[in-house]
Amino acid sequence: MRDDNGLNAMMTGLGRNARAAAKVLAAASSEAKNAALSAAASALRTRRDEILSANRRDVAEAEQRSLSGALLDRLVLNEARVESMARGLDEIAALPDPVGQEIARWSRPNGLDIARVRVPLGVIGIIYESRPNVTSDAGALCLKAGNAAILRGGSESFHSARAIMDCLQEGLRRAGLPAESLQLVPTTDRAAVGILLKMTEFIDVIVPRGGRSLIERVTEESRIPLFQHLDGINHTYVQASADLAMAREIVLNAKMRRTGVCGATETLLIDRAAADSHMAPLVRDLLEAGCEVRGDGAVQAVDRRVCAAAEEDWATEYLDAIISVRLVDGLDDAIDHIERFGSHHTDAIVTGDPASAEAFLARVDSAIVLVNASTQFADGGEFGMGAEIGISTGKLHARGPVGVEQLTSFKYLVRGAGQVRP
Amino acid sequence: MRDDNGLNAMMTGLGRNARAAAKVLAAASSEAKNAALSAAASALRTRRDEILSANRRDVAEAEQRSLSGALLDRLVLNEARVESMARGLDEIAALPDPVGQEIARWSRPNGLDIARVRVPLGVIGIIYESRPNVTSDAGALCLKAGNAAILRGGSESFHSARAIMDCLQEGLRRAGLPAESLQLVPTTDRAAVGILLKMTEFIDVIVPRGGRSLIERVTEESRIPLFQHLDGINHTYVQASADLAMAREIVLNAKMRRTGVCGATETLLIDRAAADSHMAPLVRDLLEAGCEVRGDGAVQAVDRRVCAAAEEDWATEYLDAIISVRLVDGLDDAIDHIERFGSHHTDAIVTGDPASAEAFLARVDSAIVLVNASTQFADGGEFGMGAEIGISTGKLHARGPVGVEQLTSFKYLVRGAGQVRP
Repeated sequence: MRDDNGLNAMMTGLGRNARAAAKVLAAASSEAKNAALSAAASALRTRRDEILSANRRDVAEAEQRSLSGALLDRLVLNEARVESMARGLDEIAALPDPVGQEIARWSRPNGLDIARVRVPLGVIGIIYESRPNVTSDAGALCLKAGNAAILRGGSESFHSARAIMDCLQEGLRRAGLPAESLQLVPTTDRAAVGILLKMTEFIDVIVPRGGRSLIERVTEESRIPLFQHLDGINHTYVQASADLAMAREIVLNAKMRRTGVCGATETLLIDRAAADSHMAPLVRDLLEAGCEVRGDGAVQAVDRRVCAAAEEDWATEYLDAIISVRLVDGLDDAIDHIERFGSHHTDAIVTGDPASAEAFLARVDSAIVLVNASTQFADGGEFGMGAEIGISTGKLHARGPVGVEQLTSFKYLVRGAGQVRP
Repeated sequence: MRDDNGLNAMMTGLGRNARAAAKVLAAASSEAKNAALSAAASALRTRRDEILSANRRDVAEAEQRSLSGALLDRLVLNEARVESMARGLDEIAALPDPVGQEIARWSRPNGLDIARVRVPLGVIGIIYESRPNVTSDAGALCLKAGNAAILRGGSESFHSARAIMDCLQEGLRRAGLPAESLQLVPTTDRAAVGILLKMTEFIDVIVPRGGRSLIERVTEESRIPLFQHLDGINHTYVQASADLAMAREIVLNAKMRRTGVCGATETLLIDRAAADSHMAPLVRDLLEAGCEVRGDGAVQAVDRRVCAAAEEDWATEYLDAIISVRLVDGLDDAIDHIERFGSHHTDAIVTGDPASAEAFLARVDSAIVLVNASTQFADGGEFGMGAEIGISTGKLHARGPVGVEQLTSFKYLVRGAGQVRP
């Protein structure tokens, strides 16, 4: 028997188990699902030392392979991070159960009563990179929405993810739900991802979470629909009518609060009419906060620390303390720039003019469009959705933050009294 | 220059035009879109003879190629069918415009006001077979929802589709909207479909409309998300508590009203407890209506005209006056059968027992689940959606009838007063 045959059989086994578990989960009560989440949170707390020891093994291996500092930081768990995972599970348990919710209901002239009701999607495949906490966060969200999930973590967090998955499965067992509701691909073999992405019979949607190379591979290879998250090339556009203090606070927050999140602003657009009044303070704030500023000629004139922006800067997601800054000639020019270079993720206008605000909201084709607020609000928690599995930049099914509701489908329930169609 | 290079360039041109038109359409008023639809309806009426003459050319070619009677019937246009297309456009013009509708709106504790608002999907690719009326029906639905569309009809209806498309584009021009909002692939070259299915940059979703071989090709080749419509292997399940007269009327209608529609019942499941009371009348009604009945042993005992059902009958979408009939041992057995052989499209229970009805509604995992009504109600018009582009058996984005609302996406509009994220 060749090795890849063994891998195929193993992956098919995961798929079959997940499909069977999904059938049970679809009919599971909110109480059972919440009990599983709470019991999993307890298990994370009780088995903390086991998790930390598994994590030390991952970290030691990563250090040998000279992983970069940022990646290493994402990988490391400590007591606080384990507690934060456990608290995350408790919070998801406390969310309303989307399954069974009636989204709409109406009657037809012939007396048919039609209801549109949320149901689970089925089986969700999650492919992610180094952060071990995704195992519990993403797994729990899928479970809450009545879905089974197959998780494939990064090889660098393999032992940590396995220890966390043990806790999730302990929670499921204690609540009388199938342990196979959540499964981790038990190998670091990269070929397993290729197989997963073609298991159309067993998986209904794939959620990739990671950097650009992961997303590109998944998009290229997957035969299963994706909740895709492409770049967050987000813009904040400042008009002359904007209150200067407000603009300064928003721009600084949008770029610098956390530079590595997908809702961070990467390009600042300033109206030419605001060049004299707003440009210098906005640019200096950023420079003084330690942000590298890359600008066009007018922006460079503000301060000698501003470097020249190259054409590719406008299409770059820095995820770092770098911003590109450009003067634009009014609303149309700003929207054209966003349309040309943006990634349809999150864009904001700072303005004192209600007509410009409404035009920006209407015309910018992004998942999230904001007026007078920081782009860093692009987050399911900040939207009041509780928790999110990611932000979708696709337009189908889920757009923007993907929370428990977005992890459901629906069906139509039609109640009649003998109606036949003429 | 090689031929396929010419084809690629031509298809890319269609894609670019569609994307540019979509941008205009997204901002178009309801009035402009409706004016285009009404003007197109007028054009269909005014240019009726032109359309019929183009259709005669298609029919003559089809007859030379000895197309089957059913396909020929779908292809043929006459005055009534052209008028019916025109009326279809008027009806779509009269529907409410989904674009801009606020689906949800809420405020956050920090004062952010968040609205979820419908927006067009963008560009829709429609691949269909012989019926020329799809050109106007599907094109008009896309336009109503603010989308551009690229339509690829069957080669057998090429001239008819072109004549109809001329009317649609005349309507668009008269309303001051880009004629490229709706475009027909101007070649019957089959390679064009392969190119269309990979134009991820220009097309947001593909809607295939046709038989199984078309759907399979599209599913296999497409790199663009689909609103897929697989088989309609639909069940009607009759319990002993069902009113016999109601059951007879529903079963006969569900199977025989129109046998070629995707909502037709293909399998009748009868509870063993209803064998003495319900089975004989239900089976005889079908036989007398000219339906071939294929059954298990118990069903064959009812009437010598009943043939033996083979295993593959349970998994067959006949789309014809044929039905498979089976006795089942209660609700669980019925649901197991539907889960195993069904296609998650439309399934019905006929019962006098409310608990069974609710259990069936909750547990059957199909787009449409009915109680005491005919499966032939599986239709956007019957649901009150106005018109539909098809029925989706997928679970993502659109499930069940795909009407104008399902042809939209949404975005989040966030209105602030200077909020930054802590």
